[in-house]
Amino acid sequence: MTDPALDPAAPYPTALGASDLKTITLLGQDLATDVMGNVGFGELAFWLATQQRPTPGQVRVFEAVLAALADHGFTPTALAARLTYLSAPDSIQGALAAGLLGGGSRFLGVTEDCGRFLHEVLRDRDPLPSDDDGWDALALEVVEERRAAGAFVPGLGHPVHKEGDPRTRRLFAIAEEEGLVGPHLTLFAAIGRVHPQVLGRTLPLNGAGVCGAALADLGLPIPLLRGFALLARTAGLIGQLAEEMRRPVARRIYETVDRAATPVPPQPWT
Amino acid sequence: MTDPALDPAAPYPTALGASDLKTITLLGQDLATDVMGNVGFGELAFWLATQQRPTPGQVRVFEAVLAALADHGFTPTALAARLTYLSAPDSIQGALAAGLLGGGSRFLGVTEDCGRFLHEVLRDRDPLPSDDDGWDALALEVVEERRAAGAFVPGLGHPVHKEGDPRTRRLFAIAEEEGLVGPHLTLFAAIGRVHPQVLGRTLPLNGAGVCGAALADLGLPIPLLRGFALLARTAGLIGQLAEEMRRPVARRIYETVDRAATPVPPQPWT
Amino acid sequence: MTDPALDPAAPYPTALGASDLKTITLLGQDLATDVMGNVGFGELAFWLATQQRPTPGQVRVFEAVLAALADHGFTPTALAARLTYLSAPDSIQGALAAGLLGGGSRFLGVTEDCGRFLHEVLRDRDPLPSDDDGWDALALEVVEERRAAGAFVPGLGHPVHKEGDPRTRRLFAIAEEEGLVGPHLTLFAAIGRVHPQVLGRTLPLNGAGVCGAALADLGLPIPLLRGFALLARTAGLIGQLAEEMRRPVARRIYETVDRAATPVPPQPWT
Amino acid sequence: MTDPALDPAAPYPTALGASDLKTITLLGQDLATDVMGNVGFGELAFWLATQQRPTPGQVRVFEAVLAALADHGFTPTALAARLTYLSAPDSIQGALAAGLLGGGSRFLGVTEDCGRFLHEVLRDRDPLPSDDDGWDALALEVVEERRAAGAFVPGLGHPVHKEGDPRTRRLFAIAEEEGLVGPHLTLFAAIGRVHPQVLGRTLPLNGAGVCGAALADLGLPIPLLRGFALLARTAGLIGQLAEEMRRPVARRIYETVDRAATPVPPQPWT
Repeated sequence: MTDPALDPAAPYPTALGASDLKTITLLGQDLATDVMGNVGFGELAFWLATQQRPTPGQVRVFEAVLAALADHGFTPTALAARLTYLSAPDSIQGALAAGLLGGGSRFLGVTEDCGRFLHEVLRDRDPLPSDDDGWDALALEVVEERRAAGAFVPGLGHPVHKEGDPRTRRLFAIAEEEGLVGPHLTLFAAIGRVHPQVLGRTLPLNGAGVCGAALADLGLPIPLLRGFALLARTAGLIGQLAEEMRRPVARRIYETVDRAATPVPPQPWT
Repeated sequence: MTDPALDPAAPYPTALGASDLKTITLLGQDLATDVMGNVGFGELAFWLATQQRPTPGQVRVFEAVLAALADHGFTPTALAARLTYLSAPDSIQGALAAGLLGGGSRFLGVTEDCGRFLHEVLRDRDPLPSDDDGWDALALEVVEERRAAGAFVPGLGHPVHKEGDPRTRRLFAIAEEEGLVGPHLTLFAAIGRVHPQVLGRTLPLNGAGVCGAALADLGLPIPLLRGFALLARTAGLIGQLAEEMRRPVARRIYETVDRAATPVPPQPWT
Repeated sequence: MTDPALDPAAPYPTALGASDLKTITLLGQDLATDVMGNVGFGELAFWLATQQRPTPGQVRVFEAVLAALADHGFTPTALAARLTYLSAPDSIQGALAAGLLGGGSRFLGVTEDCGRFLHEVLRDRDPLPSDDDGWDALALEVVEERRAAGAFVPGLGHPVHKEGDPRTRRLFAIAEEEGLVGPHLTLFAAIGRVHPQVLGRTLPLNGAGVCGAALADLGLPIPLLRGFALLARTAGLIGQLAEEMRRPVARRIYETVDRAATPVPPQPWT
Repeated sequence: MTDPALDPAAPYPTALGASDLKTITLLGQDLATDVMGNVGFGELAFWLATQQRPTPGQVRVFEAVLAALADHGFTPTALAARLTYLSAPDSIQGALAAGLLGGGSRFLGVTEDCGRFLHEVLRDRDPLPSDDDGWDALALEVVEERRAAGAFVPGLGHPVHKEGDPRTRRLFAIAEEEGLVGPHLTLFAAIGRVHPQVLGRTLPLNGAGVCGAALADLGLPIPLLRGFALLARTAGLIGQLAEEMRRPVARRIYETVDRAATPVPPQPWT
């Protein structure tokens, strides 16, 4: 029997949680004595994702990203979670899951799109630029390529913070304080400097984008960048549900829309 | 128009995220300058849920609980997330949501059940016991009531850690260090002392149960206790998905089951 | 090795889908030749749930129930699905799942609650009443019991159809035409006759409730009654998403709420 | 106030469910008298999606597709649903949603991918070929293009049914009986004839692919093709859950994997 898929008793390897009569381990640590009470939640989430313990500086940047993404008020995902709670108050897990399911390409996807975009540009560059002029030249090349392709540059522009997203400045500052400005943030900053000469107008580097750049510089898994936005959002959704329990809005949203519902004739799909 | 539900333009109140051209606020704080870089992720999650900033001691107990609940290896929820990722790798949010949806009554529910159970016992007691004898008497009464009703005592017993759950000792110790052993943990400890004389055998106080007691003592919303288990589990599920990307097991699980599938005749439901 | 859980190669029995090089079977039938083209979708869903082929009359009543429950316009679940599609248009499965997750105790639960309630009343009665007077006496007893317990009678009352739910009359008529009025529908009808003398006012038997009674009379699995409401709703949610693609409302709902968002001070949870 | 997004009282149009005191309408029909008892469930789902009543032939082809896609045994999505039910038996909606969330690019996506692929080829052709030779020439061109791009042809090949998928033959036959073989099925058939001369081997036209072609020929919304696979699967998942209630396998799957879990050292992400 050579195909391991045919041997159902073959071991399933994992470095995550394991337990026996006396001990529980997580990531090779003793959960009770080494992790509980000693490892913060942001630190643990980072460790679980990378299987490598982050430094305090990495934790600080990571938690700043999570704070930046945790809640943006009455977003579509927050509304979906509140409406689901209204409809099925017995299932908190369902309301949280409904809120997370909006974490796709449009509202929560910029973080992943931007981190991945920067990552793909940098992956093929060797050596990387060594000074600001070099980074600006690379950024110029990249922005021109996108423009020629008729594509947006991920992380550029914001519907509200047109003169600058306050999270962007702050996250750059924190990364600098921790000595964690790597190539992704550096390229992103250069894009911020050079894009006006290509696009003819100045757009802000948005918060979701800078978060993606920072997560990529932290060495977090690129295919999981969206996952960190979702982790942050889980905390935000718990806040939304806690508030819904005390200052409910979902019923009014539903009733408002329901009362304004206006029957129109069916319109055949073509 | 007196029914506010009829006034679609009436304000929707929130203390969570808000933003205008220059500023983003969260919980009344300036997100960029006051929260990012200054507030850890566990602290922020607590704050979002209660709308009150926790003390460092509260954060430490809270993060110890989250660590205790983050991952338990190949649980049904971890398997559901990995199988969903196998099937729909384009939708990380779907795989996380699928994992959270198992956070119901059986596997992740003990935390909520235990916290709620202790809360309901304590809610109607005034004054609370003032010494160990008093707590033991109350615990005895409660355990006897449950037994008479043919019901389990939430938080008692564990399929693996039959001689004691290492998380339980540790969480009591951390809460003690932080001066945060309140009535829920106190009653839970008393249940641990007295239940053998009612049940005729000694069961461990399990980790999920003590987490529920600790969360209740932290003043977190009782109807949202399951939400904190789910928040912890979100970090764990990200770890599971990151590991699945490198040490995949879902395909083998699926193929193992699929190959062992054995057609049997339909069995009418009666 | 006596514990079958320890034998990973032991067979996994199923009467559902199976396939080999030449054939695909489903419920013991040849899928291609016996099912495709010959078995309607409602019939198949019934058969899958009960593992027994329904009669044409059973299919007609079942499909009438599914039609009754498929869509109710801008319900919270429809809004959750539309908002999730707005936010993550790349994941139709996420939008459908978000819509289904509202199928809990409040909005979609009446069908299950009513079917289960009637089932539990009838389970312990032997013999069942043999004439209308007998059913009325049983109904009276049941309504009085609920009232004494301070509990609602599931399936009684409707916020809009205060003078009678048109689905109720119709479903009774269809069941009668097909000779499928069983004890659940009979008891439900009796409750409709006698409740005014207990409650002091006349409430309509609502559509969700009569659907639960009809599903129970069809012999469908009581613990899955909610599942049939969800199946019906899946078709409705596809309709909602198809309409959202052409006559979008989710963005306006979101923007309306977002613009009316009003920051208020945090309110500590107590 | 010119931006309609700013007018929260503006009407929300819908042709789906609506109700007032006496009547419930759906798609402009009286739900109780015109739909219930008269419209089958497959027919209703089609009508909801397209807002146009299908012909009996269209319903037959559509229901044959739904039958073909309803259940494939112990797929990853069926396992995810069963494991979620094991973990949270109180929330049927969560188990169904978890099962649907695997309906993404890999396992359930072929239907959509194939329908969309054929649709995009045909969209730009005017006039369409008028005879078999013309279709073969087009098919040849298309398969060569895909091959040159290093891309698979959606709908070609099957891991089990290597000598032909029985669903494919049957669905072509049903469509022919109903006079509903349109350009998508015609092009798909031509691809089946010509691909061996490009690829150097003969692959079967698989069942998921032919379903996508048939759905496209029925005029169903291309961006929702995945939705119909999910609708079919909802019925299958109800079957899976009903069977899990009586012939449980999820606990054994979980325990089998859990017992074979083997701790390995953490492996840092790079």
